Amino acid sequence: MSAFDKIFEYVDANEKYYIDRLAEVVAIPSVSAEAARRPDVVRMGEWLVKELKALGATVNVHHPGKQTIEGQQLDLPPIVLGTYGTDPAKKTICVYGHYDVQPAAREDGWDTDPWTLVEDAKGRLIGRGSTDDKGPVISWLWVIAAHQKLGLDMPVNLKMCFEGMEESGSEGLDEFIIAEAKGDFFKDVDAVCISDSYWLGTKKPCLTYGLRGVSYFMVEVSGPGKDLHSGVFGGIVHEPMSDLFAVFSKLVSADGKILIPGIYDDVAPVTDAEDKMYGTLDFSLNDIHEAVDSKVTIHKTEKEALMARWRYPSLSIHGIEGAFSSPGSKTVIPAKVIGKFSIRSVPNMEPAKISELVKTFVNAEFKKIGSKNTLSIDCGHAGKAWVADTNHYNYVAAEKAVERVFKVKPDFIREGGSIPVTLTFQDALQTNVLLLPMGRSDDGAHSTGEKIDKENYIGGIKLLAAYLHEIALVA
Amino acid sequence: MSAFDKIFEYVDANEKYYIDRLAEVVAIPSVSAEAARRPDVVRMGEWLVKELKALGATVNVHHPGKQTIEGQQLDLPPIVLGTYGTDPAKKTICVYGHYDVQPAAREDGWDTDPWTLVEDAKGRLIGRGSTDDKGPVISWLWVIAAHQKLGLDMPVNLKMCFEGMEESGSEGLDEFIIAEAKGDFFKDVDAVCISDSYWLGTKKPCLTYGLRGVSYFMVEVSGPGKDLHSGVFGGIVHEPMSDLFAVFSKLVSADGKILIPGIYDDVAPVTDAEDKMYGTLDFSLNDIHEAVDSKVTIHKTEKEALMARWRYPSLSIHGIEGAFSSPGSKTVIPAKVIGKFSIRSVPNMEPAKISELVKTFVNAEFKKIGSKNTLSIDCGHAGKAWVADTNHYNYVAAEKAVERVFKVKPDFIREGGSIPVTLTFQDALQTNVLLLPMGRSDDGAHSTGEKIDKENYIGGIKLLAAYLHEIALVA
Ligand SMILES: [Zn+2]
Ligand SMILES: [Zn+2]
Ligand SMILES: [Zn+2]
Ligand SMILES: [Zn+2]
Repeated sequence: MSAFDKIFEYVDANEKYYIDRLAEVVAIPSVSAEAARRPDVVRMGEWLVKELKALGATVNVHHPGKQTIEGQQLDLPPIVLGTYGTDPAKKTICVYGHYDVQPAAREDGWDTDPWTLVEDAKGRLIGRGSTDDKGPVISWLWVIAAHQKLGLDMPVNLKMCFEGMEESGSEGLDEFIIAEAKGDFFKDVDAVCISDSYWLGTKKPCLTYGLRGVSYFMVEVSGPGKDLHSGVFGGIVHEPMSDLFAVFSKLVSADGKILIPGIYDDVAPVTDAEDKMYGTLDFSLNDIHEAVDSKVTIHKTEKEALMARWRYPSLSIHGIEGAFSSPGSKTVIPAKVIGKFSIRSVPNMEPAKISELVKTFVNAEFKKIGSKNTLSIDCGHAGKAWVADTNHYNYVAAEKAVERVFKVKPDFIREGGSIPVTLTFQDALQTNVLLLPMGRSDDGAHSTGEKIDKENYIGGIKLLAAYLHEIALVA
Repeated sequence: MSAFDKIFEYVDANEKYYIDRLAEVVAIPSVSAEAARRPDVVRMGEWLVKELKALGATVNVHHPGKQTIEGQQLDLPPIVLGTYGTDPAKKTICVYGHYDVQPAAREDGWDTDPWTLVEDAKGRLIGRGSTDDKGPVISWLWVIAAHQKLGLDMPVNLKMCFEGMEESGSEGLDEFIIAEAKGDFFKDVDAVCISDSYWLGTKKPCLTYGLRGVSYFMVEVSGPGKDLHSGVFGGIVHEPMSDLFAVFSKLVSADGKILIPGIYDDVAPVTDAEDKMYGTLDFSLNDIHEAVDSKVTIHKTEKEALMARWRYPSLSIHGIEGAFSSPGSKTVIPAKVIGKFSIRSVPNMEPAKISELVKTFVNAEFKKIGSKNTLSIDCGHAGKAWVADTNHYNYVAAEKAVERVFKVKPDFIREGGSIPVTLTFQDALQTNVLLLPMGRSDDGAHSTGEKIDKENYIGGIKLLAAYLHEIALVA
């Protein structure tokens, strides 16, 4: 029996254990965006430290400093650094993941408690962080554990870098990677692997070689010194909400065209090779309809839709802080509101230029309406788009691993989301970076009902193990 | 010593008691808009029943039925009905108030706990409901108690009608008043007095003879079956938030002009008498600036500003339910959002026509943008505007009472806010209705930091007592 088969058999036999352990981490509400949840984020980091130590890894913890959130100064959660193996004869693979999660609350529309992992009749493991990114992160631990239980030698040296701020701009991470690129932890890294993206559809595994960037904007409109009664002051003061709606309505058309002048100028042209590639992908508009649970798609063809996701920018308005947001009918004039939107960027758009174009446009549109209120715009965080070289052994090994576990060649795809650290690893460590997704397109990361299918979680553990073995074989 | 002087002296001597009792009712968070607070609303109703009984009033409670809120079926809070005195030789005055309050939370920007009455250095009694409308409601009780303690005969029969749903559309109240207009409780009512409005400025008492109406609209835009990740789906689906911003940006200009065609058609023309009256009011733009704590006013003259508040409609956008509203930077595409706005209406605008104009316009604007999402618009509640006959003894008595307590003639004003029950009382009981404000323009009803000045609260108790005595003298 090959090492591959031994591992696959072992992983299948321990399915229940893996699910129980996933439930254990989903139960820690490590929301990095909420000050009140910060202790939970730290607790989740400590959980990883304990598990890594139990596996015999050398563990270090980096504290990236402080952050001001909701008016409080808080410690940023630790970057957990595990080293497993230092054999100079082996390749050294750095794996990255994040142990923080998006906010979630039952009231947002979850059918079940977001912090209790539930397996439904279709074998979906539902809970916040199940697929983004706790499932993938802990799978690396199960790969090491399986080798130990089976008495197998690890095929590579592993450097594990797990952060707790990914959902809130990865504060402190870039600085750390850049500063430590030549330091003990990163200096021997040959390639990087990140499992924090998704299959294109729901059936066929993929390797991801491109990501959009994201620039997040906060637009504050203020004027009245306090919230006002609309009966008493409606019609006699400039209302921040009216101003915000006037300005935000100018950002994007209903069919997704960004209306900010110049924003498309730096979008890379479509090459012939890229143009042909769209025809071969295992993907249908129906996959989007199923993932979205609706047919409100903008495009009529798969190619147009994927181009819109992968290689064109988009703009989404996320919400308003400071306005009335509860059920019921409050007749308030909010005194200060913060509208939030983000732009997904693509090669060769530069964050600094995006920010400049957006700020110029928003300020000009606000000036046009002639309000006495005050508008200020801030680019909260910005990450650049990224594309990788798919001929590198990192991708070749991953391709073989997919074939071994799933008996099918993976699609080579891009993603619409952004994982800014991808680019940082590539640039700072001067290595190839592979994105090796575990979950499916309909997992609902960042949404209500986030899930990972049992098949993907268990198959994913096998995939990560197989990938490391293929690295040893092809590199 | 006259009855007036005896009462005034007694009220002054019991200031601390009155403030302690106000603190007691502010501590009951009787928010009618929130399902979870419904037991507190009921508790506040029970508090009134107990106090009225202790005063020897005949108390009845009307249960208006059920309501669905936040998906729960809840009992509407009771309408508390107190009768004090049935002497056929006396006039019977019906006084109305509401014991529910607006939502409030520390996070909204309150400097102090909204449910703990705090007296600041300037003698302001700060807390939710202090001025709207718990302070005025309980003052009627103190008027009865003062007469008992002083051994004075009440100059009128009192019918007290206190509801617990005013801040949520007064559900069940209109039906009750209309049905019972000829019943035991209301049949002998000669005039109605409501203390639930505010002085025009901060210095001079007023009698209020007009109110704007309000039509509250909820616009739901939905499409995706669940919240989506903007990286994965940004640019490929029609986003409910973009649609909502597109439509709402068409509602009102930055300088407060409603952009819905036909909305101004039924606004009553300005008469010569009205036009002249604006010149004599004790009011300056500075009063608005102080109340708003800012200079973001639209108009350059007092007259324009007051006309905008009293006799022209206005439109305010209050907020969005279902979008991201917390601090931080969540990159979600909300699947279903409910935008909320309201229109303050004036004579002779009719709610049915307002609703029709608004719905036609909103649906047409949504159609224009060509989104695949679905928009539905609902008029949550609607109350008509109102004006009263100021030559009635009800107003004459109140004018004399103001002069007696405050040594100044009151201004006759209108209000921008709406108290739909005013019109119901007038139409159903066929009586004159007086609005007799206790608080000042800068009390911040519905806002953070709601307060009533100690002077206004204590002076208000005297005013209500004096008004009842003047009724007996002039009617
Ligand atoms: Zn992630
Ligand atoms: Zn994420
Ligand atoms: Zn009120
Ligand atoms: Zn109110």
